[in-house]
This record gives sequence, structure tokens and C-alpha cells, in this order.
Amino acid sequence: MINDCFFKLSGAYLFSEIAQKVKAYKAEAPRADIISLGIGDVTQPLCPAVIEALHKATDEMAVAASFRGYGPERGYDFLRDAIVEHDFRARGIDIDADEVFVSDGAKSDTGNFQELLSKDVRIAVTDPVYPVYVDSNVMAGREIVYLPCTAENGFVPQAPLLSPQVGKNTSPLGEDGRGLVIYLCYPNNPTGTTLTRDQLKVWVDYALQNNALIFYDAAYEAYIQSEDVPQSIYEIPGAKQCAMEFHSYSKTAGFTGIRCGYTVVPKGVKSERMKSEKSGLLETISLNSLWNRRQSTKFNGTSYLSQRAAEAIYTPEGKTQVKATIAYYMENARLMREVLTDMGFTVYGGVDAPYLWVRTPNDMKSWEFFDWMLRSAHVVCTPGVGFGSAGEGYVRLTAFGTHENTKEALRRVNDKL
Amino acid sequence: MINDCFFKLSGAYLFSEIAQKVKAYKAEAPRADIISLGIGDVTQPLCPAVIEALHKATDEMAVAASFRGYGPERGYDFLRDAIVEHDFRARGIDIDADEVFVSDGAKSDTGNFQELLSKDVRIAVTDPVYPVYVDSNVMAGREIVYLPCTAENGFVPQAPLLSPQVGKNTSPLGEDGRGLVIYLCYPNNPTGTTLTRDQLKVWVDYALQNNALIFYDAAYEAYIQSEDVPQSIYEIPGAKQCAMEFHSYSKTAGFTGIRCGYTVVPKGVKSERMKSEKSGLLETISLNSLWNRRQSTKFNGTSYLSQRAAEAIYTPEGKTQVKATIAYYMENARLMREVLTDMGFTVYGGVDAPYLWVRTPNDMKSWEFFDWMLRSAHVVCTPGVGFGSAGEGYVRLTAFGTHENTKEALRRVNDKL
Repeated sequence: MINDCFFKLSGAYLFSEIAQKVKAYKAEAPRADIISLGIGDVTQPLCPAVIEALHKATDEMAVAASFRGYGPERGYDFLRDAIVEHDFRARGIDIDADEVFVSDGAKSDTGNFQELLSKDVRIAVTDPVYPVYVDSNVMAGREIVYLPCTAENGFVPQAPLLSPQVGKNTSPLGEDGRGLVIYLCYPNNPTGTTLTRDQLKVWVDYALQNNALIFYDAAYEAYIQSEDVPQSIYEIPGAKQCAMEFHSYSKTAGFTGIRCGYTVVPKGVKSERMKSEKSGLLETISLNSLWNRRQSTKFNGTSYLSQRAAEAIYTPEGKTQVKATIAYYMENARLMREVLTDMGFTVYGGVDAPYLWVRTPNDMKSWEFFDWMLRSAHVVCTPGVGFGSAGEGYVRLTAFGTHENTKEALRRVNDKL
Repeated sequence: MINDCFFKLSGAYLFSEIAQKVKAYKAEAPRADIISLGIGDVTQPLCPAVIEALHKATDEMAVAASFRGYGPERGYDFLRDAIVEHDFRARGIDIDADEVFVSDGAKSDTGNFQELLSKDVRIAVTDPVYPVYVDSNVMAGREIVYLPCTAENGFVPQAPLLSPQVGKNTSPLGEDGRGLVIYLCYPNNPTGTTLTRDQLKVWVDYALQNNALIFYDAAYEAYIQSEDVPQSIYEIPGAKQCAMEFHSYSKTAGFTGIRCGYTVVPKGVKSERMKSEKSGLLETISLNSLWNRRQSTKFNGTSYLSQRAAEAIYTPEGKTQVKATIAYYMENARLMREVLTDMGFTVYGGVDAPYLWVRTPNDMKSWEFFDWMLRSAHVVCTPGVGFGSAGEGYVRLTAFGTHENTKEALRRVNDKL
């Protein structure tokens, strides 16, 4: 018998649906030169430090003495030590290497982490939202609460008031945050907006007071330019007691085809387990050891080559080269913001993130504007409504194109508008 | 709240437990020169054709024009086409490229595939069994039926009689196979034994008659030497209506550190879904599209480099080189069988598989003999009971060592016995 929860999902994974629509249009208009600013895939090659590391690791695999088979279950020490040093210690954050789990990417980890929790946990996500958080929980049969992020609230999800007064708490979360898991992704996919330290602190405080968990997706942290935007949730006091943090090298270093990321599961993050149903006695369990059990059972690590490639990002040359590529993409973001604004579009994001969240003209629906963009300008965007109902009337554009394609796409939109 | 099913698992994943015991002994006896014939990891380097493909793919990733980001969700065509041609068509089996899903390995896929099924599906596994099948289903809260495979039944799991007569059907499956999923792994991990075509046909017929599903793990098919042992379940008529097949390059080509495998989900395999609870109306759903939905939601493909590496195995040079490595390991298996038998051990497997299933001497328990092997001979084996209660009194030895280490391990066991 089939897991019935699958039938509560939307028909296809959003990006599969877009790919199919583009494919259908290409069949219809085979000569159309289509530019994709849709799926958030990168276009710039891997940097020289990474290429060198890949060749070197390949050569190691050719000789028995240096050949590597199954890796350690949390990832190789060389990579976890580099992560701890450069992504955390250098920023004044104390994370232990045993709290870092290397994986094949943040999509897998954000999709799988919910397995550790019981079916009756309530899930809170922003709306719009990266579909993986929703779909993975729907497949598991969980209830989902949506926190609208709109122009009106500055795209900041509202936590319930910490001391709610009667009639004042209008959060969709209700007043009780117990047993709640909150997915936050900042810099945000899809809106490209951020939370300041103060705005993020509200959520950490809320989680601590309510014994809730935060799943913090930091996949785009390398794009942050502003001083008051935190690069890690662990910059907020208390986060090591309530938050997991998901990292990806996909957008940091162009690893969408290489597959490497990591998840931080601090040993201080605990969740409850009913020890005795009769007495209602609870015990608290560390999620670090549970995640290790999950990963060692259903996963065998990501490629040794990918882990060596990730290590190379932390060398002085690697750092410089990766920064240059990020600057390249952020120049696209700047240009898109400027030109689209000049054209009269309302544009959010694109300052600390590679995504722009663009209001459709004339109150067009997201998919309607997607079709117009595809058919008139031969430009692929992502319909905002695909990320949730609060995304209706928006599209997402990515800054991951080449300069040339980005300029050409803007020119075409301008011409056809 | 924690997913309580995790507490029904044994404390640690078997191979993590062994690794910890070995680590503890190394701390105790730091000079001991320990030889591992325990975890099934390979020791021979990647073959030249694969190394060349990895270098070439790395060079492609260094240039924007040939850079590859996210891959197609079922895997690259170049690999799926090679799989269809060489692993199936060349053996007279007709599999469509859309029925092949490339992944990061059979462990992930055999662990994840159960997600497609409802909680109340009954799971049947052989005993002893690869722990992933059991643990992934226990985590999901399912009931598990064990089919003992012992010397008495020639390590062949017994299907219920197809036309049971009163008092004759003693299978633990009972008489009704509806809603049942049967995991079969042949050549078998851990026993190293096989099923003939006729023996496998019994299970395919049983699944077809009972609307059950077979999850067939073919991770070790490259080691088959005997003519009457099928390399794929699809050699059996009707299997394309009831069986998924899991493949791994880990043991075929030493990819334990590279991470690539694939799963075949024939479009003809369907499972039931309750369409209306009131009427009890059922509809049948193709698992192929459901698996695609699962994979496109929670997985982003395995590395482009790994997929190019896998493709290289199917070239004429790749085939020859991979065969040579398999012959190398099978020479170990032959030697182990011969020498251990001469020493008086009762040995199974090792003819069509890289594993030997060895009866412990003097009715020692599996972990007792593991300790003796580790402490007296400095050889790591895998305790049979770790694979299930029917494995008590056995240990598993792998043929994946070097010739030198394998000989040395045998010499030490002989000396200390």
C-alpha cells in the first residue's frame, strides 16, 4: 500500500514542473534562445583551487596506498576541522567538530532531518518558502503552519507575542510553541530578504521559551554584505540550545554539480521523549546522536573528491577565488535591481542574496507572468506562487546567470514590456 | 518531540559499533597491526579508465562552457543509457532509461525506498540480513517478519506454499502476502550465498500472486561466476511487474568513496492506494513516478564526476580493468575458503560473492569469536549475530583485503587456533 501522504503534495516538485514547461516551449519554438534566471543554478566554473584539489584527490584514488573507501560517518576530519575553524571560530562561534555532519547538500539534510521527530510535531514555515521543507513534512503526514512574509511586514515572519495579551496574539502559531519546529532560511530563498540580528533573536528567544526547535537554512550566507545581518544563527545567544544550521557549498562555491554541504547539530539541542505514557514522564534526548544514527543507517557520506574540493575553499587562494565569483554574481544582482526598478518594477532582495523578488506588473498572476516572460522575452523565471500562496503576484529571479545573459534578459524584458 | 521509533533500534548501526570496538582495542594495544576483514570496504584503487574519466570531468568543471551544475533528476542520460545497454540489454533484458534512477549508492536507496509505502505495510527480510533494510523500516514504525536462512534450509528463504494445505504452511509470513514487501539481497550480504533462477522464480511468482513487492538488492552481482545464478531479478518472467532492483558500483568498481549506484523502478510496478475509505475502492499507482517525486524533493543527484566515473566502467577498457579487480578479490575468496576449510571451519559463500559465512568453532557466540579474532589474531571480522539472530554462531569475512593481508590473517588465525 502506498504512503497516502504523497497525494497531499502538489503534482510535481516545483523545479521539475518549470523544467517541463520550458521543455514543452522549446519543442514548440525550437529556435528560441532561452535564458534561465529560474532555477537557482550557477553558471561560473569551479575556482582553480577546487579544480586542483579534485585532480589531486583523483590521483590519490589511483594508488592503493592513498586510496580512500568509505569515509568517516560524519565526514572527514580535514573538512570538519576547516569548517569549525573558518566558518565558526573565525567569527567568534564555538562549534565542536563532532557537531558538524558533512553531507551531499542542504537539500538532502533539510529534507531528511524531520525524520528524527514524531508525526505530531507541528511545522512552521514562512510563506513563500523553499518547497523542500513543506514537501518533506507533507510526505511524513505533518500539519504545517504558514507564516506569511509580505511587503506589508517587510518579509519578516512574525513570532507570537512572548507575553500575549488577550486579543493581541494573531500569529498563526497560536500561543503555544511547544512541539513546534520552525524552518527559517536567511538570506531567504525565494525573497532574497534577510533578518537582522535583532529580528533573528526574537525567534531564538521564542524557541528557547517554548522548547521549540529552529531549522536554520544558511545556504546563502556567503552572499551577505550588510553588517547587521548574521551569517550564522549561532551569533545569537542561546541558539546552540535550540537550532540546527544547514550549510551548502552549492551557491558558496558553485558546487551544485559536486554535491557537498554540512549540517551543524549542537550537542546542546535536545528534544523530548515520552518515557512513560502512564506518568507522562518526559526525558530529553540529544539530537546530535540521533542524527548520527539516522545518517550512519541511511547515508554513506558524500564523495571523497567532493570533500577535498570543499576543503580547498578554505585555503587562502580558495577564499579569494570564491569571493571573486560571489562578487561576479552580486554585480548581476545590483544591475537587475537597478534596471528593473528603472523599468518601474517593485523589487525586493538582491542586496545580501543572489535572489530578487519581483512584483509582477499590472497584478498579473505569477504563472501568467512566467508564461509571458518565457514566450515574449524567452526568459525563465520562477513563479512566486510556486513557493506558497503569499508568493502570488511575484516571481523570483536569480543572479546566477552570466553578465551577458543577465543584461540580454533585462534588455528583452524592457523591449517587450 | 522525538520520533519514538528510534528507540526500538539497536543502540548503534552495526558497523559503527564494530569501528568503536576496534578503536577501543587500538587504544589498549596501540602496536597491534590489525587487519580488517570486517566492514565490506574495498582496498584496490580505482581502475585507470575511471581515473581518466575523473580527471577529464574535473577539467570540464574548470571552464564555463563545459561546467555542469545541477544534473537531471534521474541522473545523466550518458550514464542511464550505458546502464540500460550494458547491464540489461546485453543480457536480453528490456529496461527503459526512464526506469533507471542514478543515486549516491544502494545504501541510500534501500534505506529510502520504504518512504513510498504506508506504515501498515508488512516487511519481510531474511535473517541474517543487511541492517539497513531493518533499521530504516523500524525508524518508520513498521512490523518486520524474519525469514530464517540457515545451513538447514541451504540459506534459501522459504516462501509460503502457493496453495497451502491445512497444517502445511509454516512460513512466518502466514498465508496472506498482500501488502507485503520482501527484501532479497543476492548474492547475499552477509552469507555470500545465492539463489538459482528457479529459487528466485518462487519469490517472483509469490509476489505476483499476492500483489506483494520485492526490493531486490543486486549490489554484488558482478561477483557471480555460476551459470544458473541470475545477475538481475528481471531475468525472471514477471519481475518487471513486482520488483525494484538496487545496484551499487561500490563493490563492482571500488566506488565506496566515490558514491554512485542506481535503482531500477519498472513502470509496470504498481501498488495500491485506497481511493475511497467508504467503498474500499482501490486504485493502482506506478511507483516509478512516486520515486521520482521523492528523489526530486529530497535529493539533488550524485556528483557529476561520480556519474562520469561510473560511465567509464562500461567502456571496453573499463570492463576489462574492473573484471581484473573482481578476479583479484575472488582469488582471496577462493584462498580463504580453502584454507579455512582445511583448518576445520565450516564455510559458506565465497563462490559467487565476496563474502564468506564462517561457523564459529566450538559453538562460540559471534561476538565472543569476534573478540577472540581481534585480540588473539588482530583480525577484524563481522559478528554474524549483528545481522540477525539466525546469524548467531557465525562471522562474516570479506574478500576485499589485499592478497598479503588476507594470507597473513589466515596464517594468524591458524597459529592462534
